[in-house]
Amino acid sequence: MLASVTLADTQAIAIGAGILGTGGGGSTYLNRLRLDGELRRRGGILPVMRADDLPADALVCAVGGMGAPTVSNEKLQAGEEIATAVRTLEAHLRQKIAAIIIGEIGGGNALGPMVAALQLGLPVVDGDGMGRAFPELQMDTFMIEGVAPAPFALADAHGNTAIFPRIGSAEQAEEFARRLCIEMGGSAALVMPLMRGSELQATIIRDTLSLAKRIGETVLECRARHLEPAAAVAALCNGKLLFTGKIIDVERRTVGGFARGKLEIAAFDSHQRQLTIDFQNENLIARSGGEVLCTVPDLITLVTLEDGAPIGTEALRYGLRVAVLALPAPKELKTAAALAVVGPRAFGYDLDFAPLPGDLL
Amino acid sequence: MLASVTLADTQAIAIGAGILGTGGGGSTYLNRLRLDGELRRRGGILPVMRADDLPADALVCAVGGMGAPTVSNEKLQAGEEIATAVRTLEAHLRQKIAAIIIGEIGGGNALGPMVAALQLGLPVVDGDGMGRAFPELQMDTFMIEGVAPAPFALADAHGNTAIFPRIGSAEQAEEFARRLCIEMGGSAALVMPLMRGSELQATIIRDTLSLAKRIGETVLECRARHLEPAAAVAALCNGKLLFTGKIIDVERRTVGGFARGKLEIAAFDSHQRQLTIDFQNENLIARSGGEVLCTVPDLITLVTLEDGAPIGTEALRYGLRVAVLALPAPKELKTAAALAVVGPRAFGYDLDFAPLPGDLL
Repeated sequence: MLASVTLADTQAIAIGAGILGTGGGGSTYLNRLRLDGELRRRGGILPVMRADDLPADALVCAVGGMGAPTVSNEKLQAGEEIATAVRTLEAHLRQKIAAIIIGEIGGGNALGPMVAALQLGLPVVDGDGMGRAFPELQMDTFMIEGVAPAPFALADAHGNTAIFPRIGSAEQAEEFARRLCIEMGGSAALVMPLMRGSELQATIIRDTLSLAKRIGETVLECRARHLEPAAAVAALCNGKLLFTGKIIDVERRTVGGFARGKLEIAAFDSHQRQLTIDFQNENLIARSGGEVLCTVPDLITLVTLEDGAPIGTEALRYGLRVAVLALPAPKELKTAAALAVVGPRAFGYDLDFAPLPGDLL
Repeated sequence: MLASVTLADTQAIAIGAGILGTGGGGSTYLNRLRLDGELRRRGGILPVMRADDLPADALVCAVGGMGAPTVSNEKLQAGEEIATAVRTLEAHLRQKIAAIIIGEIGGGNALGPMVAALQLGLPVVDGDGMGRAFPELQMDTFMIEGVAPAPFALADAHGNTAIFPRIGSAEQAEEFARRLCIEMGGSAALVMPLMRGSELQATIIRDTLSLAKRIGETVLECRARHLEPAAAVAALCNGKLLFTGKIIDVERRTVGGFARGKLEIAAFDSHQRQLTIDFQNENLIARSGGEVLCTVPDLITLVTLEDGAPIGTEALRYGLRVAVLALPAPKELKTAAALAVVGPRAFGYDLDFAPLPGDLL
């Protein structure tokens, strides 16, 4: 397990986080540049803690960027949004935060919290609330397991801040925060939830930062040996290489603060054999020939065929040669309580979740 | 000037506030019932202070309801929204508020703050930030004169609360609060701005609660003497009776959290002679035969012809027999700085403000 993050780790973590992002969580490119910059400015090392090493009464908070990846890729951050939101919440509470929790390990949202941790002089915890990326706030293990959504904080690139001291439910928090995020220009920093160490220990998906790094290292090793990385990543994660082919159609709109759409991939050997993927920030459902092959919360990730670089939904385009990975979700996302929030029906599909063949729930 | 509000005053204040509401500020009906109820429950008397009697460093806050009158007329309040928002801000600041300021004296928004003052055990100040009603947050003398918009607070009927500790401008506050208000179901309680006594004294429009009561008393006296009240109200306020007739058309939609539209009134003596009024929550522009007769910030108010009852934009309907009053706005709204925010151009009209004939600016 990771004890720290240094400049030597960020490339692998960014690749792994991109793959865990299943198309969402935002591009890792800018956040990796920002993370490298903060590491250079602040001693080159970010301490990483195990969740179980936190005192039970330590105050911690999950953080991340909110908004459509299509927006956050083009609208530059000021750079201190997350730290500003954390400081705003600390000032409201008149208490100090002890460690930063990564809200979602998928995409750029794995890296932004580490930038903030360096700016705040705090350690980051190895783990997150999703084990991947999801589009909505109620879709993390903290909310699924009943951690209180309030107080939570938002900050935008102009230094505007908001605190919600009392909120009825995680879904209500999602609705309020989403509206405000849209008004803030389509992206904002979010601090939610605030937790005690004991609550974190009862709910976090452990060691996902280490997992991201191992996935990235696998990709980098394959590149060094001139192998296509997708199969090796699938093997590492007990998943499968679902499809390889060329993107032949992308339908994508930014609606209600989300990047929604559908893409079609045609096999290299037969243009008739196609894979269709529905996405809402993240890839949700993969189908071929009328058959459902993989559904959320299992991870559906596109990587470039030759070098295994993860492809965010904001970067999808005609002609890309891709491999599609199907990776089993962490067990915490496949309980009945979790599937009610992150299963296919939660996204409007009339489908039950079916685990990948060979996945032991 | 008023020293207190008792059950004997509320009818007159409600009528006067309705007339100052120029169609907006929400219906006075429900809020008067609530005010009477709180007065009965809490000793029957609400102390009223003069702004100039507040200590310079006393902490005060303007409060009111936000949202479209079409919504707040149908969506019942829980009853403590404003008090909840004030308490939320007090808890955030760890400081107590010394007096409640009426944000806008127009419509039900004159009465809601008095309900909250009774619930909080605080006095209310005689005066407000508008001298009438306006649709947006930046349109009060506090914001026009540069009082800081943050921190401000919102609360909804479900007890959800939000605080904005730092906001770039009053316009930004309006945009964030409006979005959130819509998400809160189209109405919410707002506490904004927080001020010191000295800031209040430099910016408040004085004695408008007393004015509302005098206007209402004038209407009630006319009713007792079986006179049409409109001309007497116009005389009291140095305004004019602009038109009498029957509403022949109303076009009204609830858009972006506002009640927007247009109405047409035909004269009794000639159906050809008509008055057209544009509104956005409040009545903004009155025209007849291609001529502009009165523009915001001057007050355009419809009252029922026979008994002088103010008619909110949410209550406009075909067939109502009405008198249209044009009353000069308080001088604080007619400075160059104020007209930039509350003049016709601020509402999208290619018109300069022209004072009513005989109005000494």
